[in-house]
Amino acid sequence: MDKKELIIKEFAPFELSDADMQNAINQAKILNFNKGEILYKDKSACYGFLLVLSGALRAFVLFANNKEITIFELEKGDECVLCAKCIAQNDELEINLEAMDEVKILVVAPEIFMPLRLKYPKLANFVLDLLAKRFNKSIQIMSQALFSTLNERIKSYLLSKANNNIVEKTHEQIANEIGSAREAVSRILKELESSGLLRLGRGKIILSDDFKF
Amino acid sequence: MDKKELIIKEFAPFELSDADMQNAINQAKILNFNKGEILYKDKSACYGFLLVLSGALRAFVLFANNKEITIFELEKGDECVLCAKCIAQNDELEINLEAMDEVKILVVAPEIFMPLRLKYPKLANFVLDLLAKRFNKSIQIMSQALFSTLNERIKSYLLSKANNNIVEKTHEQIANEIGSAREAVSRILKELESSGLLRLGRGKIILSDDFKF
Repeated sequence: MDKKELIIKEFAPFELSDADMQNAINQAKILNFNKGEILYKDKSACYGFLLVLSGALRAFVLFANNKEITIFELEKGDECVLCAKCIAQNDELEINLEAMDEVKILVVAPEIFMPLRLKYPKLANFVLDLLAKRFNKSIQIMSQALFSTLNERIKSYLLSKANNNIVEKTHEQIANEIGSAREAVSRILKELESSGLLRLGRGKIILSDDFKF
Repeated sequence: MDKKELIIKEFAPFELSDADMQNAINQAKILNFNKGEILYKDKSACYGFLLVLSGALRAFVLFANNKEITIFELEKGDECVLCAKCIAQNDELEINLEAMDEVKILVVAPEIFMPLRLKYPKLANFVLDLLAKRFNKSIQIMSQALFSTLNERIKSYLLSKANNNIVEKTHEQIANEIGSAREAVSRILKELESSGLLRLGRGKIILSDDFKF
């Protein structure tokens, strides 16, 4: 699908006028990002409305002490509206996005999207539902981080990311995504290796057939 | 102010029609809760739009393992719309509210509030901003729980709750509000008492003048 078809399909439920729909189509962009690329340039960067066409992104929050935690992930077909300009003016929290592999996204700039959101209640309510979904997911992820042991969190993470028993992640990436420290993650991975539950390779982890939560 | 004046003041920015405003006024209720009371009856309970007139509430999430964490607090003047029916249909997460002291709230039932939200984009966007604010606050609170030591979290909590150096909370309440276990909280409080930073009383904690973060 080209961007015109994508926008028409995506925005159909919101009952935009023909002129507004055409404007959204004209202003929509398809952007590509490489694995590891951060999708923001500065504090005021904002993508407006975002739809993941391929690949996956993770949303993470950075704290003053340079620690970070992944609060949710976006996969193909997921929409997102989370940037400061689009939702809340809030200097205290900055949600960042990182491409977890090659990523293609469709975006409608905030200058176009914001007025639409203020004009069409169905669109405003769609964004509200999206935000509620991300809110729920964030609380689930953070509560797992709070209430599970690091060992449990790493196991659950590896199981969720394994593709044919292989997880292509560095210790640093795992630490960032589950909100822990690299040293602690490495220590537990080595313990799991000693127990025969996995093998550590270069940039990847090979789970044994016995590996389970 | 009576409920009519409260609703008119609160809903003025949303440009409701006279009929819709009158309907909201007719349906609004002022409710009172006692300290410790939980503001929900069952999974489907929902207060629609809620404005805190006096007292304070805490919103917390309960997990399968019976652990809970406070994700934000609501004080006088704070509005909230967070129940399942009003925002997201999501069985995985249930946000509960507890009265932290004597509480008086103004509510507009979801049956009235939802159609208004779908009709008036300004109202939909107001709810979106509210949710974004709670989202941010939740992430701040949970990240503090994740990234601070328990000692730091307890100190910071006591400082935020102290009234004339007195914190009227049980160890259990503190544990619940910061997402920890009662035993762990009691242990640290005893350590702080041994250091002369506070005195433990019945249902209250008296901070010494030297107490600081």
